[in-house]
Amino acid sequence: MKIALIGFGSVGRGKSGIISAGGIDMRAVLDRKKATGMCGTPGISAWDVITTADYDLLIEVTPTDATTGEPALTYIREALAAGRHVVTSNKGPIAVAFHELSRLAAEKNVQLRYEATVCGAVPIMKALEHGLAGNEIIKISGVFNGTCNYILTRMADEGLTYQQALMEARELGYAEADPTYDVQGIDAAIKLVILANTVWGLSTTLDDVDITGIDSLTLAALELADGQECTIRLIGEIIPKKNILRISPRIMPKNHPLVVSGTLNAVMVDTDMAGEVTLIGKGAGSRETASAIISDVLFIRDYHVKRS
Amino acid sequence: MKIALIGFGSVGRGKSGIISAGGIDMRAVLDRKKATGMCGTPGISAWDVITTADYDLLIEVTPTDATTGEPALTYIREALAAGRHVVTSNKGPIAVAFHELSRLAAEKNVQLRYEATVCGAVPIMKALEHGLAGNEIIKISGVFNGTCNYILTRMADEGLTYQQALMEARELGYAEADPTYDVQGIDAAIKLVILANTVWGLSTTLDDVDITGIDSLTLAALELADGQECTIRLIGEIIPKKNILRISPRIMPKNHPLVVSGTLNAVMVDTDMAGEVTLIGKGAGSRETASAIISDVLFIRDYHVKRS
Repeated sequence: MKIALIGFGSVGRGKSGIISAGGIDMRAVLDRKKATGMCGTPGISAWDVITTADYDLLIEVTPTDATTGEPALTYIREALAAGRHVVTSNKGPIAVAFHELSRLAAEKNVQLRYEATVCGAVPIMKALEHGLAGNEIIKISGVFNGTCNYILTRMADEGLTYQQALMEARELGYAEADPTYDVQGIDAAIKLVILANTVWGLSTTLDDVDITGIDSLTLAALELADGQECTIRLIGEIIPKKNILRISPRIMPKNHPLVVSGTLNAVMVDTDMAGEVTLIGKGAGSRETASAIISDVLFIRDYHVKRS
Repeated sequence: MKIALIGFGSVGRGKSGIISAGGIDMRAVLDRKKATGMCGTPGISAWDVITTADYDLLIEVTPTDATTGEPALTYIREALAAGRHVVTSNKGPIAVAFHELSRLAAEKNVQLRYEATVCGAVPIMKALEHGLAGNEIIKISGVFNGTCNYILTRMADEGLTYQQALMEARELGYAEADPTYDVQGIDAAIKLVILANTVWGLSTTLDDVDITGIDSLTLAALELADGQECTIRLIGEIIPKKNILRISPRIMPKNHPLVVSGTLNAVMVDTDMAGEVTLIGKGAGSRETASAIISDVLFIRDYHVKRS
């Protein structure tokens, strides 16, 4: 299986060293240097790689645009249309155009996989697709943003104010210089959109999510929760039958499986047969994203069933 | 795909009503009545079903014998040898003869799946095989027995003695009349053997597990842990590189992901790329077991790749 990789940054770097361990022949992009070279030097653009390289599977890890999905959407569409499998960590195109891309993949008898788009290293998409296959998925709830969870954990554990905890998160590299995307719940909302559209086949957009972030949460609120053996977490929740699709700070019992510490992510799936199943793990990081991407690549390598 | 089911009891009953929902044609055994009839009346034994029925996949849910794996081991061997897929919830044959059965399945180009043998509805085997594919699995630790976890939870939360909590567990149907198998850690140890042999390819047996149960644990020990923001859980642990394979009561911080309440099970997988990933859910129950079995059946239906 020949693999092409497009995209820069920590994700691409975290992965490229590891992917050769899977016994996969990466003809188009063998290592980090070539990957950077192909996309970074004039004359060999990502578009050139997609349209001219000899590959069976595209790994797409370019930066996310949650509104348009571009340029990744165009890249993925082109690769699928040319009969290539696609594995992406990019939330944009999956949130914006999952159904279109999914139909295209089916038409061309190739796979589109996106484990890395939701909760990093936590294999939630495969748990939903395979591990819980046959179950009716009634509800998905979870902690989908590690930055917010870190801030809330530090406020509760150390009595820091929101501003103090945010500053600490920035210093440790857990929050961006502009933390809006995380603390206002937008990043978590995009993951809900992906889950709603991929798990239930809905056609939701970011506008459909009822979003409240953590940026106006007071230490007093956390202290109040603490007095009742509870704490506050930014919880994303999808219950299609009740038309619920929301991100909001919620008071949770401290021993609830979704009450995880620090930058962890957690997802609870409510099902008819399996009951409540919870997955916890690291939601961000280059190696964690690489884990999700590689598991997708290996799944396609091992289990792609050619239809006649 | 034609499915034969052998086995009685709550597992068979919990499943048979549900399996037709998967769009699967169960020619050999269509419903609970027939399943009971086939195995329960003279003249139509489980052996008759296996050797004479027209089926592609055998669901084997007969009672467990952890020492010999029989009679399930013979049933499974026969079905695989005849080129049939096998899905089992039976810990015995997988703990006793995984490598032999696995080789036989590979020779015959059929699949042997056993998701239900470890932690019921928690899709841990698929998480290890697919969700975390490409990762080196460094360590697996977890709460593998819901009966013990229920007893420990009640001792810690309500100040019950071991005997009181055990009596309560019996009254609620969480513990058998003879609780030895659970409280002495044997049930959990069998699951460790299955994980050790299937995940790392080891050839361990029950004798290789260093087992300490919870039956001599005092309330005083739990109270001591509680004073340090900790509690006690019966933890199973496999670290092949350190030759560790043990079940023992362990002092755990209360906010540790493995500290789950009541009859829940939890498994933490330590990996090189994904870091620590934890799965939590119900480890027993007929619907929960059915969930695991059906997910195996659907995986085989959807992803069995015929080798030429």
